[in-house]
Amino acid sequence: MTSSDSSGKKWTSAEEEIMQATYRALLSHGYANLSMSRIAEELDKSKAAPYYYYDSKDELLVSFLDYSVDQFEETIDTRESDDPKETLDRVIEKLLPLQPDETEQQLQTVLVELRAQAVTNEAFREQFTRLDEKIVTAIHEIIQRGIDDGVFRDVDSTRVAEHILATITGTRYCHATTNRQTAIAVTRVSLSSYIDSELRKRP
Amino acid sequence: MTSSDSSGKKWTSAEEEIMQATYRALLSHGYANLSMSRIAEELDKSKAAPYYYYDSKDELLVSFLDYSVDQFEETIDTRESDDPKETLDRVIEKLLPLQPDETEQQLQTVLVELRAQAVTNEAFREQFTRLDEKIVTAIHEIIQRGIDDGVFRDVDSTRVAEHILATITGTRYCHATTNRQTAIAVTRVSLSSYIDSELRKRP
Repeated sequence: MTSSDSSGKKWTSAEEEIMQATYRALLSHGYANLSMSRIAEELDKSKAAPYYYYDSKDELLVSFLDYSVDQFEETIDTRESDDPKETLDRVIEKLLPLQPDETEQQLQTVLVELRAQAVTNEAFREQFTRLDEKIVTAIHEIIQRGIDDGVFRDVDSTRVAEHILATITGTRYCHATTNRQTAIAVTRVSLSSYIDSELRKRP
Repeated sequence: MTSSDSSGKKWTSAEEEIMQATYRALLSHGYANLSMSRIAEELDKSKAAPYYYYDSKDELLVSFLDYSVDQFEETIDTRESDDPKETLDRVIEKLLPLQPDETEQQLQTVLVELRAQAVTNEAFREQFTRLDEKIVTAIHEIIQRGIDDGVFRDVDSTRVAEHILATITGTRYCHATTNRQTAIAVTRVSLSSYIDSELRKRP
Protein backbone atom coordinates (compact mmCIF):
# COMPACT_ATOMS: atom_id res chain seq x y z
CA MET A 1 0.00 0.00 0.00
CA THR A 2 3.01 2.36 0.01
CA SER A 3 3.82 3.92 -3.29
CA SER A 4 4.79 7.30 -4.65
CA ASP A 5 5.27 9.14 -7.90
CA SER A 6 9.03 8.51 -7.81
CA SER A 7 8.55 4.72 -7.61
CA GLY A 8 6.87 4.83 -11.01
CA LYS A 9 3.61 3.54 -9.58
CA LYS A 10 0.34 4.94 -10.89
CA TRP A 11 -1.09 5.84 -7.48
CA THR A 12 0.57 8.12 -4.91
CA SER A 13 0.26 7.11 -1.25
CA ALA A 14 -1.99 10.15 -0.66
CA GLU A 15 -4.30 8.97 -3.45
CA GLU A 16 -4.24 5.41 -2.11
CA GLU A 17 -5.32 6.69 1.31
CA ILE A 18 -8.27 8.49 -0.26
CA MET A 19 -9.20 5.34 -2.23
CA GLN A 20 -9.12 3.20 0.91
CA ALA A 21 -11.26 5.81 2.70
CA THR A 22 -13.69 5.84 -0.25
CA TYR A 23 -13.94 2.05 -0.08
CA ARG A 24 -14.78 2.15 3.66
CA ALA A 25 -17.28 5.00 3.18
CA LEU A 26 -18.98 3.14 0.29
CA LEU A 27 -19.36 -0.02 2.38
CA SER A 28 -20.77 2.01 5.29
CA HIS A 29 -23.12 4.35 3.43
CA GLY A 30 -23.69 2.94 -0.09
CA TYR A 31 -23.53 5.06 -3.25
CA ALA A 32 -26.71 7.10 -2.70
CA ASN A 33 -25.70 8.30 0.76
CA LEU A 34 -22.02 8.79 0.00
CA SER A 35 -20.66 12.34 0.25
CA MET A 36 -17.25 13.98 0.11
CA SER A 37 -17.53 14.79 3.82
CA ARG A 38 -18.24 11.13 4.67
CA ILE A 39 -15.13 10.08 2.76
CA ALA A 40 -13.18 12.79 4.62
CA GLU A 41 -14.47 11.39 7.93
CA GLU A 42 -12.98 8.01 7.00
CA LEU A 43 -9.70 9.76 6.21
CA ASP A 44 -9.57 11.20 9.72
CA LYS A 45 -7.91 14.32 8.31
CA SER A 46 -9.05 17.74 7.23
CA LYS A 47 -12.49 17.37 5.68
CA ALA A 48 -11.20 19.36 2.72
CA ALA A 49 -8.71 16.64 1.71
CA PRO A 50 -10.75 14.84 -0.99
CA TYR A 51 -11.86 18.19 -2.44
CA TYR A 52 -8.20 19.07 -2.88
CA TYR A 53 -7.82 16.19 -5.32
CA TYR A 54 -11.30 15.77 -6.82
CA ASP A 55 -13.97 18.22 -7.96
CA SER A 56 -16.96 15.98 -7.24
CA LYS A 57 -18.11 12.71 -5.72
CA ASP A 58 -18.53 11.15 -9.18
CA GLU A 59 -15.05 12.27 -10.31
CA LEU A 60 -13.60 10.66 -7.16
CA LEU A 61 -15.63 7.48 -7.76
CA VAL A 62 -14.32 7.16 -11.33
CA SER A 63 -10.79 7.29 -9.86
CA PHE A 64 -11.88 4.78 -7.24
CA LEU A 65 -13.08 2.39 -9.98
CA ASP A 66 -9.82 2.92 -11.88
CA TYR A 67 -7.87 2.11 -8.69
CA SER A 68 -10.08 -0.93 -7.98
CA VAL A 69 -9.53 -2.37 -11.46
CA ASP A 70 -5.74 -1.97 -10.94
CA GLN A 71 -6.00 -3.73 -7.56
CA PHE A 72 -8.14 -6.47 -9.05
CA GLU A 73 -5.57 -7.07 -11.78
CA GLU A 74 -2.83 -7.55 -9.16
CA THR A 75 -4.88 -10.17 -7.27
CA ILE A 76 -5.62 -12.22 -10.40
CA ASP A 77 -2.22 -13.47 -11.48
CA THR A 78 -2.74 -15.99 -14.25
CA ARG A 79 0.94 -16.37 -15.14
CA GLU A 80 1.80 -18.72 -12.32
CA SER A 81 2.79 -22.30 -12.98
CA ASP A 82 -0.30 -23.92 -11.40
CA ASP A 83 -2.42 -26.42 -13.18
CA PRO A 84 -4.71 -24.40 -15.54
CA LYS A 85 -7.83 -26.17 -14.23
CA GLU A 86 -6.94 -25.30 -10.61
CA THR A 87 -6.12 -21.71 -11.61
CA LEU A 88 -9.50 -21.39 -13.38
CA ASP A 89 -11.31 -22.80 -10.32
CA ARG A 90 -9.46 -20.33 -8.09
CA VAL A 91 -10.43 -17.34 -10.28
CA ILE A 92 -14.08 -18.46 -10.32
CA GLU A 93 -14.06 -18.87 -6.53
CA LYS A 94 -12.65 -15.35 -6.27
CA LEU A 95 -15.24 -13.83 -8.62
CA LEU A 96 -18.19 -15.88 -7.35
CA PRO A 97 -17.44 -17.08 -3.80
CA LEU A 98 -19.73 -19.93 -2.77
CA GLN A 99 -20.20 -18.39 0.66
CA PRO A 100 -19.59 -14.64 0.32
CA ASP A 101 -18.81 -12.97 3.67
CA GLU A 102 -20.57 -9.79 4.76
CA THR A 103 -17.92 -7.45 3.31
CA GLU A 104 -18.08 -9.27 -0.03
CA GLN A 105 -21.89 -8.95 -0.08
CA GLN A 106 -21.73 -5.23 0.79
CA LEU A 107 -19.16 -4.76 -1.99
CA GLN A 108 -21.43 -6.49 -4.53
CA THR A 109 -24.31 -4.25 -3.46
CA VAL A 110 -22.19 -1.12 -3.88
CA LEU A 111 -20.94 -2.31 -7.29
CA VAL A 112 -24.53 -2.68 -8.53
CA GLU A 113 -25.26 0.90 -7.47
CA LEU A 114 -22.04 2.18 -9.10
CA ARG A 115 -22.60 0.14 -12.26
CA ALA A 116 -26.11 1.59 -12.66
CA GLN A 117 -24.41 4.98 -13.11
CA ALA A 118 -22.63 3.51 -16.16
CA VAL A 119 -25.85 3.53 -18.20
CA THR A 120 -25.75 7.33 -18.32
CA ASN A 121 -22.16 8.29 -17.31
CA GLU A 122 -19.50 7.53 -19.93
CA ALA A 123 -16.58 7.77 -17.45
CA PHE A 124 -18.18 5.08 -15.25
CA ARG A 125 -18.95 3.04 -18.37
CA GLU A 126 -15.31 3.10 -19.46
CA GLN A 127 -14.19 1.78 -16.06
CA PHE A 128 -16.68 -1.12 -16.09
CA THR A 129 -15.68 -1.88 -19.70
CA ARG A 130 -12.05 -1.99 -18.51
CA LEU A 131 -12.97 -4.23 -15.55
CA ASP A 132 -14.84 -6.74 -17.75
CA GLU A 133 -11.99 -6.73 -20.29
CA LYS A 134 -9.48 -7.54 -17.51
CA ILE A 135 -11.63 -10.42 -16.21
CA VAL A 136 -12.29 -11.93 -19.63
CA THR A 137 -8.61 -11.57 -20.58
CA ALA A 138 -7.50 -13.32 -17.37
CA ILE A 139 -9.92 -16.23 -17.98
CA HIS A 140 -8.99 -16.35 -21.67
CA GLU A 141 -5.27 -16.60 -20.82
CA ILE A 142 -5.82 -19.50 -18.41
CA ILE A 143 -7.89 -21.41 -20.99
CA GLN A 144 -5.39 -20.71 -23.77
CA ARG A 145 -2.51 -21.90 -21.56
CA GLY A 146 -4.46 -25.09 -20.83
CA ILE A 147 -4.96 -25.64 -24.57
CA ASP A 148 -1.28 -24.93 -25.31
CA ASP A 149 -0.23 -27.33 -22.52
CA GLY A 150 -2.49 -30.01 -23.96
CA VAL A 151 -4.66 -30.33 -20.84
CA PHE A 152 -7.75 -28.61 -22.32
CA ARG A 153 -9.55 -29.36 -25.59
CA ASP A 154 -8.77 -27.01 -28.48
CA VAL A 155 -11.91 -24.86 -28.11
CA ASP A 156 -12.60 -21.21 -29.02
CA SER A 157 -11.09 -19.82 -25.80
CA THR A 158 -12.57 -16.33 -26.35
CA ARG A 159 -16.11 -17.75 -26.58
CA VAL A 160 -15.71 -19.88 -23.45
CA ALA A 161 -14.16 -16.96 -21.51
CA GLU A 162 -17.03 -14.63 -22.50
CA HIS A 163 -19.58 -17.28 -21.48
CA ILE A 164 -17.97 -17.71 -18.05
CA LEU A 165 -17.87 -13.92 -17.53
CA ALA A 166 -21.55 -13.54 -18.53
CA THR A 167 -22.65 -16.36 -16.22
CA ILE A 168 -20.66 -15.05 -13.24
CA THR A 169 -21.82 -11.46 -13.81
CA GLY A 170 -25.47 -12.52 -14.11
CA THR A 171 -25.31 -14.61 -10.93
CA ARG A 172 -23.67 -11.85 -8.86
CA TYR A 173 -26.24 -9.37 -10.17
CA CYS A 174 -29.17 -11.68 -9.33
CA HIS A 175 -27.71 -12.34 -5.88
CA ALA A 176 -27.47 -8.60 -5.14
CA THR A 177 -30.91 -7.66 -6.53
CA THR A 178 -33.25 -10.59 -5.74
CA ASN A 179 -34.09 -12.92 -2.85
CA ARG A 180 -33.08 -16.00 -4.88
CA GLN A 181 -30.23 -16.87 -2.57
CA THR A 182 -29.60 -20.39 -3.87
CA ALA A 183 -28.69 -19.04 -7.32
CA ILE A 184 -24.93 -18.87 -6.56
CA ALA A 185 -24.72 -22.52 -5.46
CA VAL A 186 -26.69 -23.69 -8.52
CA THR A 187 -24.58 -21.62 -10.93
CA ARG A 188 -21.34 -22.88 -9.39
CA VAL A 189 -22.47 -26.43 -10.16
CA SER A 190 -23.64 -25.50 -13.66
CA LEU A 191 -20.37 -23.63 -14.36
CA SER A 192 -18.33 -26.68 -13.29
CA SER A 193 -20.45 -28.79 -15.60
CA TYR A 194 -20.01 -26.26 -18.45
CA ILE A 195 -16.23 -26.04 -18.00
CA ASP A 196 -15.91 -29.79 -17.79
CA SER A 197 -18.04 -30.28 -20.89
CA GLU A 198 -16.19 -27.62 -22.92
CA LEU A 199 -12.60 -28.10 -21.77
CA ARG A 200 -12.08 -31.66 -20.57
CA LYS A 201 -10.26 -33.83 -23.07
CA ARG A 202 -12.22 -36.88 -24.07
CA PRO A 203 -10.55 -40.25 -24.30
CA MET B 1 -55.43 -3.57 -23.11
CA THR B 2 -59.05 -3.17 -21.98
CA SER B 3 -59.85 -4.72 -18.67
CA SER B 4 -61.75 -3.84 -15.55
CA ASP B 5 -62.34 -5.00 -12.01
CA SER B 6 -65.55 -6.74 -13.05
CA SER B 7 -63.73 -8.83 -15.69
CA GLY B 8 -61.70 -10.44 -12.93
CA LYS B 9 -58.45 -9.07 -14.34
CA LYS B 10 -55.79 -7.81 -11.96
CA TRP B 11 -55.41 -4.42 -13.63
CA THR B 12 -58.19 -1.89 -14.25
CA SER B 13 -58.09 0.01 -17.53
CA ALA B 14 -57.31 3.22 -15.58
CA GLU B 15 -54.33 1.51 -13.98
CA GLU B 16 -53.22 0.10 -17.33
CA GLU B 17 -53.28 3.61 -18.81
CA ILE B 18 -51.04 4.85 -16.00
CA MET B 19 -48.67 1.89 -16.51
CA GLN B 20 -48.41 2.59 -20.25
CA ALA B 21 -47.76 6.27 -19.48
CA THR B 22 -45.09 5.26 -16.93
CA TYR B 23 -43.44 3.06 -19.55
CA ARG B 24 -43.31 5.92 -22.08
CA ALA B 25 -42.05 8.38 -19.44
CA LEU B 26 -39.34 5.93 -18.30
CA LEU B 27 -38.11 5.45 -21.87
CA SER B 28 -38.06 9.22 -22.42
CA HIS B 29 -36.53 10.37 -19.13
CA GLY B 30 -34.91 7.35 -17.41
CA TYR B 31 -35.38 6.53 -13.74
CA ALA B 32 -33.35 9.41 -12.29
CA ASN B 33 -35.26 12.11 -14.17
CA LEU B 34 -38.69 10.52 -13.86
CA SER B 35 -41.32 12.40 -11.90
CA MET B 36 -45.04 12.04 -11.24
CA SER B 37 -45.68 15.16 -13.34
CA ARG B 38 -43.74 13.68 -16.28
CA ILE B 39 -45.88 10.53 -16.07
CA ALA B 40 -48.99 12.75 -15.92
CA GLU B 41 -47.80 14.55 -19.07
CA GLU B 42 -47.72 11.20 -20.88
CA LEU B 43 -51.27 10.54 -19.64
CA ASP B 44 -52.46 13.76 -21.25
CA LYS B 45 -54.95 14.19 -18.41
CA SER B 46 -55.04 16.08 -15.16
CA LYS B 47 -51.52 16.15 -13.75
CA ALA B 48 -52.94 14.92 -10.46
CA ALA B 49 -54.06 11.57 -11.93
CA PRO B 50 -51.10 9.36 -10.86
CA TYR B 51 -51.14 10.95 -7.38
CA TYR B 52 -54.75 9.84 -7.05
CA TYR B 53 -53.62 6.21 -7.23
CA TYR B 54 -50.05 6.28 -5.89
CA ASP B 55 -48.37 8.12 -3.02
CA SER B 56 -44.92 8.32 -4.56
CA LYS B 57 -42.86 7.68 -7.68
CA ASP B 58 -41.34 4.55 -6.13
CA GLU B 59 -44.74 3.16 -5.11
CA LEU B 60 -45.95 3.69 -8.69
CA LEU B 61 -42.79 2.04 -10.06
CA VAL B 62 -43.28 -1.05 -7.89
CA SER B 63 -46.77 -1.36 -9.42
CA PHE B 64 -45.22 -0.77 -12.84
CA LEU B 65 -42.79 -3.67 -12.25
CA ASP B 66 -45.66 -5.85 -11.02
CA TYR B 67 -47.62 -4.98 -14.19
CA SER B 68 -44.56 -5.59 -16.40
CA VAL B 69 -43.97 -9.05 -14.91
CA ASP B 70 -47.64 -9.92 -15.61
CA GLN B 71 -47.26 -8.66 -19.21
CA PHE B 72 -44.03 -10.58 -19.62
CA GLU B 73 -45.70 -13.79 -18.44
CA GLU B 74 -48.42 -13.37 -21.08
CA THR B 75 -45.86 -13.00 -23.90
CA ILE B 76 -43.90 -16.12 -22.90
CA ASP B 77 -46.31 -18.94 -23.49
CA THR B 78 -44.44 -22.21 -23.08
CA ARG B 79 -47.49 -24.45 -23.23
CA GLU B 80 -47.86 -24.39 -26.97
CA SER B 81 -47.24 -27.47 -29.06
CA ASP B 82 -44.11 -26.25 -30.82
CA ASP B 83 -40.93 -28.22 -30.87
CA PRO B 84 -39.23 -27.63 -27.46
CA LYS B 85 -35.90 -26.69 -29.10
CA GLU B 86 -37.62 -24.06 -31.28
CA THR B 87 -39.60 -22.75 -28.28
CA LEU B 88 -36.37 -22.43 -26.26
CA ASP B 89 -34.64 -20.60 -29.13
CA ARG B 90 -37.64 -18.25 -29.39
CA VAL B 91 -37.56 -17.43 -25.66
CA ILE B 92 -33.80 -16.77 -25.80
CA GLU B 93 -34.26 -14.51 -28.85
CA LYS B 94 -36.94 -12.63 -26.91
CA LEU B 95 -34.79 -12.24 -23.77
CA LEU B 96 -31.54 -11.57 -25.60
CA PRO B 97 -32.30 -10.25 -29.08
CA LEU B 98 -29.26 -10.50 -31.36
CA GLN B 99 -29.95 -7.04 -32.75
CA PRO B 100 -31.91 -5.12 -30.10
CA ASP B 101 -33.77 -2.13 -31.54
CA GLU B 102 -33.59 1.32 -29.94
CA THR B 103 -36.67 0.81 -27.73
CA GLU B 104 -35.30 -2.52 -26.50
CA GLN B 105 -31.96 -0.88 -25.64
CA GLN B 106 -33.69 2.00 -23.81
CA LEU B 107 -35.75 -0.54 -21.89
CA GLN B 108 -32.63 -2.47 -20.84
CA THR B 109 -31.05 0.78 -19.67
CA VAL B 110 -34.12 1.67 -17.60
CA LEU B 111 -34.27 -1.83 -16.12
CA VAL B 112 -30.65 -1.54 -14.90
CA GLU B 113 -31.54 1.74 -13.16
CA LEU B 114 -34.71 0.23 -11.62
CA ARG B 115 -32.92 -2.96 -10.60
CA ALA B 116 -30.21 -0.96 -8.80
CA GLN B 117 -33.00 0.25 -6.46
CA ALA B 118 -33.58 -3.40 -5.51
CA VAL B 119 -30.34 -3.52 -3.52
CA THR B 120 -31.86 -1.22 -0.90
CA ASN B 121 -35.64 -1.31 -1.57
CA GLU B 122 -37.36 -4.58 -0.58
CA ALA B 123 -40.50 -3.89 -2.67
CA PHE B 124 -38.36 -3.51 -5.83
CA ARG B 125 -36.38 -6.59 -4.79
CA GLU B 126 -39.55 -8.69 -4.54
CA GLN B 127 -40.59 -7.70 -8.07
CA PHE B 128 -37.21 -8.60 -9.58
CA THR B 129 -37.27 -11.87 -7.63
CA ARG B 130 -40.70 -12.54 -9.14
CA LEU B 131 -39.48 -11.64 -12.65
CA ASP B 132 -36.47 -13.97 -12.43
CA GLU B 133 -38.67 -16.77 -11.04
CA LYS B 134 -41.06 -16.39 -13.99
CA ILE B 135 -38.21 -16.52 -16.53
CA VAL B 136 -36.49 -19.51 -14.95
CA THR B 137 -39.83 -21.35 -14.59
CA ALA B 138 -40.66 -20.72 -18.27
CA ILE B 139 -37.26 -22.05 -19.40
CA HIS B 140 -37.47 -24.95 -16.96
CA GLU B 141 -40.90 -25.98 -18.32
CA ILE B 142 -39.65 -26.00 -21.92
CA ILE B 143 -36.64 -28.14 -21.01
CA GLN B 144 -38.75 -30.52 -18.91
CA ARG B 145 -41.26 -30.89 -21.76
CA GLY B 146 -38.37 -31.69 -24.12
CA ILE B 147 -37.12 -34.34 -21.69
CA ASP B 148 -40.61 -35.81 -21.26
CA ASP B 149 -41.09 -35.86 -25.05
CA GLY B 150 -37.79 -37.68 -25.44
CA VAL B 151 -36.18 -34.96 -27.59
CA PHE B 152 -33.79 -33.67 -24.87
CA ARG B 153 -31.36 -35.64 -22.72
CA ASP B 154 -32.51 -36.38 -19.17
CA VAL B 155 -30.53 -33.54 -17.50
CA ASP B 156 -31.17 -31.58 -14.29
CA SER B 157 -33.57 -29.12 -15.93
CA THR B 158 -33.48 -26.70 -12.97
CA ARG B 159 -29.69 -26.39 -13.18
CA VAL B 160 -29.73 -25.82 -16.96
CA ALA B 161 -32.57 -23.26 -16.65
CA GLU B 162 -30.69 -21.33 -13.93
CA HIS B 163 -27.52 -21.36 -16.05
CA ILE B 164 -29.36 -19.97 -19.08
CA LEU B 165 -30.99 -17.24 -16.94
CA ALA B 166 -27.62 -16.25 -15.37
CA THR B 167 -25.90 -16.09 -18.77
CA ILE B 168 -28.68 -14.02 -20.38
CA THR B 169 -28.92 -11.67 -17.38
CA GLY B 170 -25.14 -11.14 -17.29
CA THR B 171 -24.99 -10.43 -21.02
CA ARG B 172 -27.86 -7.91 -20.93
CA TYR B 173 -26.28 -6.21 -17.93
CA CYS B 174 -22.85 -6.00 -19.62
CA HIS B 175 -24.47 -4.68 -22.81
CA ALA B 176 -26.24 -1.90 -20.87
CA THR B 177 -23.25 -0.90 -18.69
CA THR B 178 -20.13 -1.34 -20.86
CA ASN B 179 -18.92 -0.56 -24.38
CA ARG B 180 -18.32 -4.27 -25.12
CA GLN B 181 -20.94 -4.35 -27.85
CA THR B 182 -19.95 -7.71 -29.35
CA ALA B 183 -20.78 -9.52 -26.09
CA ILE B 184 -24.37 -10.36 -27.13
CA ALA B 185 -23.33 -12.03 -30.38
CA VAL B 186 -20.60 -14.05 -28.62
CA THR B 187 -22.96 -15.16 -25.83
CA ARG B 188 -25.65 -16.19 -28.31
CA VAL B 189 -23.12 -18.52 -29.94
CA SER B 190 -21.88 -19.82 -26.57
CA LEU B 191 -25.47 -20.35 -25.33
CA SER B 192 -26.32 -22.36 -28.47
CA SER B 193 -23.22 -24.44 -27.87
CA TYR B 194 -24.14 -24.89 -24.17
CA ILE B 195 -27.74 -25.90 -24.95
CA ASP B 196 -26.62 -28.27 -27.67
CA SER B 197 -24.02 -29.84 -25.38
CA GLU B 198 -26.41 -30.21 -22.43
CA LEU B 199 -29.67 -31.13 -24.17
CA ARG B 200 -28.94 -32.80 -27.51
CA LYS B 201 -29.37 -36.53 -27.40
CA ARG B 202 -26.24 -38.39 -28.39
CA PRO B 203 -26.40 -41.35 -30.73
